Amino acid sequence: MNTNNTFYAINATTEKPLEGAFQNASIGKINEVVKKATEAFEIYRKKDKNSIADFLDQIAEEIMNLGDSLLERCHLETALPMARLQGERVRTVNQLKLFATVVREGSWVDARIDTAIPDRIPIPKADIRHMLIPLGPIAVFGASNFPLAFSTAGGDTASALAAGCPVVVKGHKAHPGTAELVATAILKAVKKCRMPDGTFSLIHGNSRKVGEDLVKHPEIKAVGFTGSYGGGKALFNYANARLEPIPVFAEMGSTNPVFILPAALKESGDKIAEGMVGSITIGVGQFCTKPGLLFIQKSESTDKFYSQLGNGISKVPGATMLTPDMLKAYNSGIESTLQIGEVELFASGLNGGTTTATSKVFKTSIENFINNKSLSEENFGPTSILVEANSKEEIFEIARNLEGHLTATVHGTDKDLEEYKELFDILELKVGRVLINGFPTGVEVCNSMVHGGPYPATTAPQSTSVGTNAMKRFVRPVCFQNYPQFLLPDALKNNNPFVIWRLIDGGISKSGV
Amino acid sequence: MNTNNTFYAINATTEKPLEGAFQNASIGKINEVVKKATEAFEIYRKKDKNSIADFLDQIAEEIMNLGDSLLERCHLETALPMARLQGERVRTVNQLKLFATVVREGSWVDARIDTAIPDRIPIPKADIRHMLIPLGPIAVFGASNFPLAFSTAGGDTASALAAGCPVVVKGHKAHPGTAELVATAILKAVKKCRMPDGTFSLIHGNSRKVGEDLVKHPEIKAVGFTGSYGGGKALFNYANARLEPIPVFAEMGSTNPVFILPAALKESGDKIAEGMVGSITIGVGQFCTKPGLLFIQKSESTDKFYSQLGNGISKVPGATMLTPDMLKAYNSGIESTLQIGEVELFASGLNGGTTTATSKVFKTSIENFINNKSLSEENFGPTSILVEANSKEEIFEIARNLEGHLTATVHGTDKDLEEYKELFDILELKVGRVLINGFPTGVEVCNSMVHGGPYPATTAPQSTSVGTNAMKRFVRPVCFQNYPQFLLPDALKNNNPFVIWRLIDGGISKSGV
Repeated sequence: MNTNNTFYAINATTEKPLEGAFQNASIGKINEVVKKATEAFEIYRKKDKNSIADFLDQIAEEIMNLGDSLLERCHLETALPMARLQGERVRTVNQLKLFATVVREGSWVDARIDTAIPDRIPIPKADIRHMLIPLGPIAVFGASNFPLAFSTAGGDTASALAAGCPVVVKGHKAHPGTAELVATAILKAVKKCRMPDGTFSLIHGNSRKVGEDLVKHPEIKAVGFTGSYGGGKALFNYANARLEPIPVFAEMGSTNPVFILPAALKESGDKIAEGMVGSITIGVGQFCTKPGLLFIQKSESTDKFYSQLGNGISKVPGATMLTPDMLKAYNSGIESTLQIGEVELFASGLNGGTTTATSKVFKTSIENFINNKSLSEENFGPTSILVEANSKEEIFEIARNLEGHLTATVHGTDKDLEEYKELFDILELKVGRVLINGFPTGVEVCNSMVHGGPYPATTAPQSTSVGTNAMKRFVRPVCFQNYPQFLLPDALKNNNPFVIWRLIDGGISKSGV
Repeated sequence: MNTNNTFYAINATTEKPLEGAFQNASIGKINEVVKKATEAFEIYRKKDKNSIADFLDQIAEEIMNLGDSLLERCHLETALPMARLQGERVRTVNQLKLFATVVREGSWVDARIDTAIPDRIPIPKADIRHMLIPLGPIAVFGASNFPLAFSTAGGDTASALAAGCPVVVKGHKAHPGTAELVATAILKAVKKCRMPDGTFSLIHGNSRKVGEDLVKHPEIKAVGFTGSYGGGKALFNYANARLEPIPVFAEMGSTNPVFILPAALKESGDKIAEGMVGSITIGVGQFCTKPGLLFIQKSESTDKFYSQLGNGISKVPGATMLTPDMLKAYNSGIESTLQIGEVELFASGLNGGTTTATSKVFKTSIENFINNKSLSEENFGPTSILVEANSKEEIFEIARNLEGHLTATVHGTDKDLEEYKELFDILELKVGRVLINGFPTGVEVCNSMVHGGPYPATTAPQSTSVGTNAMKRFVRPVCFQNYPQFLLPDALKNNNPFVIWRLIDGGISKSGV
């Protein structure tokens, strides 16, 4: 075996290799797993909805059955605290169960029926029926920052399996042991639920080549990715250059601007400061929705707020990041920011030594912010930039000049919100989620969630990667014209055997035809 | 004025220039109309749904008000018969009215509400609400073959305007006068309905540069296109290479395979032959859904069918194509096919002289078909290729090897359909629409229609360009977290002022919250 192709997980805290060797997937291995996925697709996509729902539930159960050994390995690989990982496991399992519920209910397939009008003049109208069908094998890239909830059995995998697509996960090199354990759980569920071999596969890789080869495989039909702009954009380019281009649903992060309006600052500046310190530094700032830009309009309350924010940050302990490389990138981002003129290092957290990240908040003027594009770029870690505006007009101006982000947040009293109404018209065009008087970290897994947003936050602004709508990424519509009942999918049969909501001749109902 | 930038419409029948000069849009002109569209977007997207519906209805009315002078000009430019153009005008107008109905009803915005659970353990659940919002200015490319229904006020324009997006149409160079008349009608409706200036613009161009410049404009947010593979793929590549990539919904045509199964051939071969002659030659074969590949399993009925088909084709008169260039391309495609060995010119229509297209049907063996990839490629015009299979297994094999198409058609008796059930499992993965015992030409504009399909039929298999779902191409989801009632869009307010269907805490209803 070529030892260049072997790699080890690294203990995020000690930076020493952990037990167990992993192999970079060769082209041969990739061909093998995608071939299996392609064969599995023929069978898996035809499984009835209850079997798929049961399968998702079973994956959840098998993940719980792994017990704390999963969390322990994960903790070693990522340095994320056990309590956080316990919470993330709950989220992962609940996410699978939520998709199971939606699949079991069945209306998500968007069944539409237009009945025939044989005697229509000048030409008869045919019977036409529409539903969503799965795309085929999906490549999923595990994310580093949610080693459970957005990795091997995370949101992308759960939504693709729920949609009826086999999945090939390219595990994240930062937690291969965690990925392997979770894969074991999924494979147990595949067996128990008699799903076809190849419904799920995990491959490893600590080089970009593995991901590139996977995305370029002609039988892969879509890609789910959460990670850096560079990584996501590279996959997007590979996918578009294929003989058959395929969609890439890459969530590439953002700086998640926050606007703090004057009356709110006056009324509850202390609470906002406290919450903001938490939101900037939670998970060592390694959240896609970390608030990286704070826009504040100068008023008599700003100084007090600054000191509260600075005070809060100064007490945040240094902490270990997911990987030594991420710490390096974070520190280098901090250095670059410091080298920009007229940027003040406004607050620093406690220094935990050279192997930990120290929280940093910067402050700059609006002119300087506008003149330095790099200040808008994400630095993955516990840092944020405070930008002081001089007027309401400047606040609007900043908002109008924002690029695409995952979220935008506004803190305001009712009076503020009335007065800055226009701000919301601007922000809804810039992001996937606008939130008021909250903190962007914490993404609810529900029917209404949009975790996405205009480019460069994602390569696919017309979709979400969190919440039940995430399934829609992995399907396409097909229509069936003049089909006899016995050939129609159950969702489209006259008698509506699933009792799902359907659009029949323009009206929504659960009735038969 | 630079005369290189001036062009004239060509009388499709006489090949002589028609009255009226048109200008290739300069970069300056493109910047101007897109700037106006961008400004209009701010206002147009906030118009209430009834105003937008009324506007669509008004466009329909203004098109009718143009009277027969529209059809006459269109006839000169395209050589399409007046009766066909009359029908196409009805379709265009009904399409606008259908979108108006959907917009007025309002449920299409996919409103979703997850109510707050403030006392949830371990963390409170916020109120989160979701809906679809328009993308921004859309570039629409008029199609040559539907100068009314898929051009200036056609499906792409209607669906984009319905979705709340301003439209810049790049008119097709083959019918600039028709485009100009229709644009006048739309602009009248803009005025009458007090829609903002810039809601709609038409630019002209007889060079690819104009389309390229339009798609590359940073404020254009999506592209609708119907046309050739070369044209669609070029726009797709431009769009993906932009600083901000944007979606391109390009419908690039296909060869629309037809399978005629043995019992159907025996039972109703004559009717199928008659219908097939019509479907191959309707509109001089200039339909995206023209059946260009006929797969027939050899049986005792095949010879009779062949002679009926040949007989039918031999009586089809030569006819003028949309443009002299298309005729040239068609004839050169015919020449290329003839030069492939073991391809028999099976039937020829009446020769109408060198300025008209003669219908041609070819016949070849399955081996030869599989060995010559070019036989699967679209030749836009009244031609089709008959491929004889020797067995059911060969029929399945051909189906499995198909690329993406808009449609697939199967003719079969109930017995055939039972026996070839597997064929449908294969075909639904290859196309946007599968039809039984019908003819693919004729695309119903309804809620269930899918006019789309896997690449290379389109660049966007997850969408349709015909039918009410076409609106979904020009929107994206946004969610609103913890919004006070007065800031929420009406579709998401507690009291459901529009009385639309919404997904509330997982249940579909028209109730308030």
